[in-house]
Amino acid sequence: MPDRNPLVRLLRPRSVAVIGASDDPLRIGGRPIDYMRSQGYQGRLMPVNPNRAAIQGLEAYASVAGLPQTPDVAIVAVAAKLAPDVVAELAARGTAAAIVFSAGFAEAGAEGARIQQRMVASARKYGMRLLGPNSLGVVNPGTGFYGSFTSVVEMGFPVAGRVGIASQSGAYGSHILGIARDAGIGVSACVMSGNESDISLGDIVHAMVDDDNTDVIAVYAEGIRDGQRLMQALEAARKARKPVVMMKVGTSAVGSAAAQSHTASLAGNDAVTDAVLAEFGVVRARSTEHMLDVARLATRRIYPASNSLGVITVSGGAGVIISDAAEVAGLPMPEMPPATQERLKALLPFAAPRNPVDCTAQFLNDMTIAGRFTQAVVAEGGYQSVLGFFTYTGGADSIAPRLREQLKGVRDKHPDRLYLLSVLASPERVREYEADGFSVFEDPTRAVVAIEAMGRFGQAFERAPGLPPPSVPAVALPDSTPDEAQAKRVLAQAGIAVAPERACAAAGEAVAAAEALGYPVVLKILSPDIQHKSEIGGVLLNVTDAEGVRAGFDLLIARAEEAMPGARFEGVLVAKQLSGGVECILGIQRDPVFGPVAMFGLGGIFVEVMKDVVLHRCPFGEDVAEQMIRSIKGAPLLLGARGKPPVDIKALAGMLARLSVFAHQAGPRLQSVDLNPVFAMPQGQGAFAVDAVIEVTELPR
Amino acid sequence: MPDRNPLVRLLRPRSVAVIGASDDPLRIGGRPIDYMRSQGYQGRLMPVNPNRAAIQGLEAYASVAGLPQTPDVAIVAVAAKLAPDVVAELAARGTAAAIVFSAGFAEAGAEGARIQQRMVASARKYGMRLLGPNSLGVVNPGTGFYGSFTSVVEMGFPVAGRVGIASQSGAYGSHILGIARDAGIGVSACVMSGNESDISLGDIVHAMVDDDNTDVIAVYAEGIRDGQRLMQALEAARKARKPVVMMKVGTSAVGSAAAQSHTASLAGNDAVTDAVLAEFGVVRARSTEHMLDVARLATRRIYPASNSLGVITVSGGAGVIISDAAEVAGLPMPEMPPATQERLKALLPFAAPRNPVDCTAQFLNDMTIAGRFTQAVVAEGGYQSVLGFFTYTGGADSIAPRLREQLKGVRDKHPDRLYLLSVLASPERVREYEADGFSVFEDPTRAVVAIEAMGRFGQAFERAPGLPPPSVPAVALPDSTPDEAQAKRVLAQAGIAVAPERACAAAGEAVAAAEALGYPVVLKILSPDIQHKSEIGGVLLNVTDAEGVRAGFDLLIARAEEAMPGARFEGVLVAKQLSGGVECILGIQRDPVFGPVAMFGLGGIFVEVMKDVVLHRCPFGEDVAEQMIRSIKGAPLLLGARGKPPVDIKALAGMLARLSVFAHQAGPRLQSVDLNPVFAMPQGQGAFAVDAVIEVTELPR
Repeated sequence: MPDRNPLVRLLRPRSVAVIGASDDPLRIGGRPIDYMRSQGYQGRLMPVNPNRAAIQGLEAYASVAGLPQTPDVAIVAVAAKLAPDVVAELAARGTAAAIVFSAGFAEAGAEGARIQQRMVASARKYGMRLLGPNSLGVVNPGTGFYGSFTSVVEMGFPVAGRVGIASQSGAYGSHILGIARDAGIGVSACVMSGNESDISLGDIVHAMVDDDNTDVIAVYAEGIRDGQRLMQALEAARKARKPVVMMKVGTSAVGSAAAQSHTASLAGNDAVTDAVLAEFGVVRARSTEHMLDVARLATRRIYPASNSLGVITVSGGAGVIISDAAEVAGLPMPEMPPATQERLKALLPFAAPRNPVDCTAQFLNDMTIAGRFTQAVVAEGGYQSVLGFFTYTGGADSIAPRLREQLKGVRDKHPDRLYLLSVLASPERVREYEADGFSVFEDPTRAVVAIEAMGRFGQAFERAPGLPPPSVPAVALPDSTPDEAQAKRVLAQAGIAVAPERACAAAGEAVAAAEALGYPVVLKILSPDIQHKSEIGGVLLNVTDAEGVRAGFDLLIARAEEAMPGARFEGVLVAKQLSGGVECILGIQRDPVFGPVAMFGLGGIFVEVMKDVVLHRCPFGEDVAEQMIRSIKGAPLLLGARGKPPVDIKALAGMLARLSVFAHQAGPRLQSVDLNPVFAMPQGQGAFAVDAVIEVTELPR
Repeated sequence: MPDRNPLVRLLRPRSVAVIGASDDPLRIGGRPIDYMRSQGYQGRLMPVNPNRAAIQGLEAYASVAGLPQTPDVAIVAVAAKLAPDVVAELAARGTAAAIVFSAGFAEAGAEGARIQQRMVASARKYGMRLLGPNSLGVVNPGTGFYGSFTSVVEMGFPVAGRVGIASQSGAYGSHILGIARDAGIGVSACVMSGNESDISLGDIVHAMVDDDNTDVIAVYAEGIRDGQRLMQALEAARKARKPVVMMKVGTSAVGSAAAQSHTASLAGNDAVTDAVLAEFGVVRARSTEHMLDVARLATRRIYPASNSLGVITVSGGAGVIISDAAEVAGLPMPEMPPATQERLKALLPFAAPRNPVDCTAQFLNDMTIAGRFTQAVVAEGGYQSVLGFFTYTGGADSIAPRLREQLKGVRDKHPDRLYLLSVLASPERVREYEADGFSVFEDPTRAVVAIEAMGRFGQAFERAPGLPPPSVPAVALPDSTPDEAQAKRVLAQAGIAVAPERACAAAGEAVAAAEALGYPVVLKILSPDIQHKSEIGGVLLNVTDAEGVRAGFDLLIARAEEAMPGARFEGVLVAKQLSGGVECILGIQRDPVFGPVAMFGLGGIFVEVMKDVVLHRCPFGEDVAEQMIRSIKGAPLLLGARGKPPVDIKALAGMLARLSVFAHQAGPRLQSVDLNPVFAMPQGQGAFAVDAVIEVTELPR
């Protein structure tokens, strides 16, 4: 719908000008014209070339000014140094979007980057959008629009369909396009983003969300630059019930280098991407094959939020393979109703009717067995997804037509389910099953993985809005990285409970504080110059009396001086020593792409050795926080494992949610927060941060 | 080589009789004859049917007795109740092996099981081997021997080659055969084992090891029954440098039900299979696709023990995908030598020469770039495995022939490396590349997974014999499950160090023991009726003086009586309380298929919540024990994480190895051992079992 989003026009322009058009169909400026002519592009195609009256049999124009009409889209296939002027002309004429094939811009060094900047500025001046430069362009098999010079079409043009492909790589985007073609996956549009000087990956995804010809979006990403725009597009896709499957490769070196804080180094940039994609219901593909499997099945547009798998098989072994795969994928396979099991058993004594439902090779003698068993699985089992394993019997000429009839009968009666077949059959026969509404996956394991993804889409589409993030007062960040006591004061203002403690400048004051808090206490050195206190022996645990407090105070002064001569000594923090709780870590890291991200894990070895942590983008509500806490592998330790009482999950979740809001409100100066440890006390007794480090970008003085 | 192993004859018989031969080529007794005639079986084919002089144009014989010669192999396709007599006749005549197609035996109930037993007894009496019953038989495309009625061949016969397929499922074995055919994977023999009344999966694998026409063995298993024979076959395969890739589906319900001990319930039966397969260098496939990918690449017979991957690509994105996949697979991708990188950079300024080596689309303008870059990767990079990503350019008519010439030139100069290509090309063009020595995997991720497997095969083939298991004195098991003190005495005899302790029948004795051992001590109740002491409060920690010992003694008597009135009370165990060590668990479970299996893990939550354990079949040496210990995720805790001293790994490994020998020597009456906890003390200070439970099968009194 171009009205809603002008970029949709880029996917299906009504008129196209090719600047730098070539009469040679193998040249960059010749290929798009050759492709569009051979594929019957219906819009107006206008080659621009100052030296020729005709290009590949079409009337050519000498210049942009000489075009008989303003094109929806212009393809720019001229040398980099000429491109800015061409783009300026196009923009001034009111062209909606330009696709710049030319290379030699930002990817080629500083000089190219300057040219690129100039070119984008010209385009923006008149509101023209720009794809590229260094882009392999746009392919739309349905309209025959080939704003691309990709040579993958030499082995065959892609077929029209409803999967949009958005790729940050031209070569790999074309590779995907070729595989989609060979797998019979129809494509609505394939857009390769190139340098993303203007139109970014998020823009492309958003255009596909707004494109009425696209149902499913497959994304290939190498380095996401427009976190906010991409997230907006993903949320729009979720609301429009358009599934997004994404292959995000590599780990950002920028992100890793920026990972200075404890929290960040524990999690890693790729885990942030995982968390963000999961938040928007995007299925992250592990391989090209996986991405296209999911995209292909998704074109059925059946996304069962309460997914379950019923299996009909002619091989017990295949049934086990499918059950194994479903368990790994987390896809439930409930048993058939007992009454139905009895009925099927009466029908066929050797059948295994539980689910997988094994109708054995007996169906070869009576084809209605396949139909009746499948009908039972669908109607009485009530599964949302149904997978039939018929292997080579589903492909054999002597069997397939009769089997097809049986299966089609069931499917037509219950068209609301997701139907898959695992058969070994010729491409023609596969097309027949596909036309009947059955998606064919030769490998049953791959079928199961794809089915599970449909359920995740459904859950994301139907997700009710969660609790709003808690209200947290705005807190001013200090001008520079604060010491522990200051950090805790900042957090306390944000409603984060800290262990009772007092900052004391003198030994006498410390004794008074300890008496007031109650023994045992912990003494910690207080200095803005010393962040990692325990490494210099700056923390004394289990101090039980006044004499100990006095001696400890002097010892900490001595240790600070020894470790860092001249360090500013501001006294000692006296804190009540907590016991009986479970140590946790709560943290914030600022991701350069997606903004602040919260982390939760159990303390000590659990994060450092076992890497058992969970992440979520900030801000979020207490419901999400509680889900995070319950999702870690070590969660049983919080819920009362090994005879211990369960901890105060509500208090812990509240702290995590408030921390996320604090981080969100704090803005980009907040680099990281580490609450380590937080003591999660037994139920009803709260949770308290015992140590806190906040890192901020220092304000210029 | 039939001389070495008579079962090889079953794969390629010189003569075949079909008992129950049918003139109808669609019947079970007709299909093998039809298939063999159409596929040109070269040996003598003798139908047996009392009612016809000719079957499908071949002279038929009225009975086994009437056969003109004793067949190498007989196919039995008669009703179950007739089969035992036929088998007896065949065996008496000296037939080497019979394949019994007939169903209705053990799989059909108790009566069938009796018939099956009688049939096997007849065969064994004369030394005839028996495949099945209820078997889909044997397929050998190379000799045209189709001792099978599988209908998968209706869509095309498999091609001859060097991959052996051993399957416990007829339907799924045929499915694999069909996929292999469609993927162009040549098969030496496919054997489907059926009920395994005589010939087991292990026998089949062993026959393929001894078959000179098989290089690679692909196994599909549902429930392994012959653990010892299978392991012998796998070890023979390893010694013969024949890779085995196995898909083992499901988890044995028998095994799970038998999992009574703590150790067993922590580990699970499937983990035992994993450990055993890894021990023999078998690659466990996660899907059919994965199995056939590995088998196909393995036919190149290049198994680099020091595997490394060099990548040449025309797409930066594909390079990242491949690097990601290699990292997940644990396949090293070292950098190219700096001098070579500089040279390549000089040749092509936009190239990325590190590895992946990106020669960019520039090679389209100068095809020798592809050759020179690939040559540099192979000769100067020195990688054992080389993957070229050329996507659709490798399939395009305008490019492929010249690219092929360049690549072939490199390969011919260095034929010792493993070469793969990721291209999008027609089947004909793929065959050309394959003929040149390049294995083609369209999906680069699948290519990487297969490459990594070749290295694992190489490591297994080249593995030097490890240390012998330590010598452990033979220890007599008690007649019934012993109490803690007895259990520890048994283990101490096997050289397993236990924490210093004394069993004391009276309070005064306990005080004397505590004084001798030194405080603090631990008091534990001693009763053969109470195995899980801590659950009834039967363990008192940190007892610091004589008064505490006396009070504790009385308290334990009271608790025992309260928890289990009438329990036999034998006193109290007084043990020195160890501190400063790391808690570990060492255990033994008896697997019904593979025998005793040892487990190692860290104590408490690490095994119970994090399931961080490692298993190995018994017995093994201290080197294997140390590898096990170092392989768990939590190993850093033993090696000195978080400022703690490293523990005494040597002592811990010694204990684990001795435990494995003890379990091996103890025989089948030993059900399980749990040493929980074992304290691994700081380096040089040993490791001590603090609690020990041994379960034995009770001897009849």
